[in-house]
Amino acid sequence: MSTIELDTVEDWRVFATDQTVERVTQAGEDTIVTWSDGRESAYHRYFLRDNCTCSHCYLPLTREQLFEITDAPADLAVRSTSVATDGALNVVWSDGHASRYAAGWLRSHASDATSRAERHAARPQSFIWGREYADALQSFDYAEIMADDRVLWTWLGAMRSSGLTQVKNVPTDNHSLLAPIARISHLRETNFGRVFDVKSKPVADSAAYTSVLLPAHTDLPTRELQPGLQFLHCLVNDAVGGESIFVDGFAIGEAMRAQYPAEFATITTAPMAFWNRDDRTDYRWSAPLIALTAEGDLSEVRFANFLRGPIDAPAQQMGEIYTALRLFQAMCRDPKYFIERRLAPGDMWAFDNRRVLHARRAFDPQTGERHLQGAYVDRDEINSRWRVLARELGETV
Amino acid sequence: MSTIELDTVEDWRVFATDQTVERVTQAGEDTIVTWSDGRESAYHRYFLRDNCTCSHCYLPLTREQLFEITDAPADLAVRSTSVATDGALNVVWSDGHASRYAAGWLRSHASDATSRAERHAARPQSFIWGREYADALQSFDYAEIMADDRVLWTWLGAMRSSGLTQVKNVPTDNHSLLAPIARISHLRETNFGRVFDVKSKPVADSAAYTSVLLPAHTDLPTRELQPGLQFLHCLVNDAVGGESIFVDGFAIGEAMRAQYPAEFATITTAPMAFWNRDDRTDYRWSAPLIALTAEGDLSEVRFANFLRGPIDAPAQQMGEIYTALRLFQAMCRDPKYFIERRLAPGDMWAFDNRRVLHARRAFDPQTGERHLQGAYVDRDEINSRWRVLARELGETV
Repeated sequence: MSTIELDTVEDWRVFATDQTVERVTQAGEDTIVTWSDGRESAYHRYFLRDNCTCSHCYLPLTREQLFEITDAPADLAVRSTSVATDGALNVVWSDGHASRYAAGWLRSHASDATSRAERHAARPQSFIWGREYADALQSFDYAEIMADDRVLWTWLGAMRSSGLTQVKNVPTDNHSLLAPIARISHLRETNFGRVFDVKSKPVADSAAYTSVLLPAHTDLPTRELQPGLQFLHCLVNDAVGGESIFVDGFAIGEAMRAQYPAEFATITTAPMAFWNRDDRTDYRWSAPLIALTAEGDLSEVRFANFLRGPIDAPAQQMGEIYTALRLFQAMCRDPKYFIERRLAPGDMWAFDNRRVLHARRAFDPQTGERHLQGAYVDRDEINSRWRVLARELGETV
Repeated sequence: MSTIELDTVEDWRVFATDQTVERVTQAGEDTIVTWSDGRESAYHRYFLRDNCTCSHCYLPLTREQLFEITDAPADLAVRSTSVATDGALNVVWSDGHASRYAAGWLRSHASDATSRAERHAARPQSFIWGREYADALQSFDYAEIMADDRVLWTWLGAMRSSGLTQVKNVPTDNHSLLAPIARISHLRETNFGRVFDVKSKPVADSAAYTSVLLPAHTDLPTRELQPGLQFLHCLVNDAVGGESIFVDGFAIGEAMRAQYPAEFATITTAPMAFWNRDDRTDYRWSAPLIALTAEGDLSEVRFANFLRGPIDAPAQQMGEIYTALRLFQAMCRDPKYFIERRLAPGDMWAFDNRRVLHARRAFDPQTGERHLQGAYVDRDEINSRWRVLARELGETV
């Protein structure tokens, strides 16, 4: 495999390919590259010009583009092409500008259907789980996360893949969850603070701060962007009751898609209202319970029954919306989808709050103290840190 | 107008109506209310049961729902209805549960087409602007924002409506922008910190921290949720050049919708890649340049040319995508859409970073110091604070 090191400035990554450019032809606005494996990739003139990374078009200091494609003349055309000795494609433009594109970069960014399907298939897949995952659930050690970048990277990878991980042996001092989080990123602050204390409070501004059963929910569905990763750390757990339950919302989503396609269609399109009802805040957001990517993959679950507002939908759709909602709620209670654990002091759950719903059984505050601390970090930060660690550890991702 | 005070716990708001319930009939799963103005509103049995706010169904302490609609029997039916002396609808259910609904609440949450259209029309509209707005641009005084809740509320309302406001007479001490922000909410922290310093830096990790021209952009399009409101405060501005330019992205969006419908369709659907290229972070997100709500209203603009990654689209769509992109960029440069100002020390801009693009002309760092400080607050926080202030000020919104 020939790894081609770019002398241009567009990226920190190195793009490699086993293939070489065999032939370059021109067809209208497209430059057609025929590869050594026979694949043909068409590159539009604007795409190529836009991705010139010479030091006139890019700011080397920040690796950011200076050139704007709107400054290319409307009649810009490829004047000539050639393949360099290192395999790169050289292009000279009708206005005299010259660009070069490494073969690995071209292959990695090709827009033909085969290349795009390959890239789509190579994306990381979510690992979907149910009750049986309780035995295989990945557990990480606090001290190893703090000391070893590879353990940190593996932990973040498990959060990305399964949405649920457990950390053991976290010190039980106040705010000690912040140390492993600082290995990742800054926090996502909310109106409940940078760190929130989950304990029964005499004047509660959320059901979380009482001792009642909390049905399976995501936190803060009242916000346009729900917090991505939630870290929930147990300091004290002496009260009777209060077991934690986790449900993979993606497992429920895929089961609905397979078994109840009509209800799945409803739940992925009908906006559901979420409101909080505090005297100092008034957050509201409406969105479907399950969001899909443009390609139809599951991207997000949004649900907290205790934060729902009245559904605003045409009267004739109410029946189907409630049928789908009732099904979703019933599935969230089905033990085959959930993992139940009693948290011990020093345990910390780290889970994707936009995928994994969590529930808490009622507890009796008269029987002992129960004190958890929680904090949030957005998905962007987990993903960025995971990519940078992969780069530093020499992993190809 | 009769204002009906609820004895139930569902909300902090009081819902009022001029209308009274004239007649209540049953049609299949729907309870039909005929109002004094002749309107007929159908309420599905699950919708009514779901919105029972008696103290069994709701937790009075937090005003959050305890009842879950999945616990209603599948054959739940309305056994009887009556209109109370205060005009509220009383319902007795087939399982013996009893609920009541104030007339104002029913009217405000009716799902008939007329009621829904009324609510849609009553939503706050964005005020779209261009160059001519420079003369009318709203300016607020720092001391008044700090002292007067009504000025604060008006300022937030102007941000929601026009997306661009200016504050004068902010002290020029380090971090003094935090005082007016603290009147609103906590900050949206990013990898650039809670407060970021915009000045020319010898080792820049963003084009913002150089002296080059910054074309019109939104900040952090590399994140799934771009920061909502940006506060940009001028402490020192002695350098030649560096004028600030603001462009209403919604004005460009609406102009494209009206004049270039094909390009508008492309720009609102084709995903555009945004990547940062720092050695310590690797953020990536792809989304259309303009996002629409489910109803087709403009909801967001996402664009920074210097953070774009290679477009990943089918080869045959590249031509139309680049045509739309070039048009969008060209419109962002058209002086009829922009307001240009030179910031003076003590000026602070507050603008919707997901709507208003900002640009900076190149400056000469040899001619003097230029130092701005910036911070972000998400739209959720602005909207929540605005609603709570409205409640406290007795405004109906």
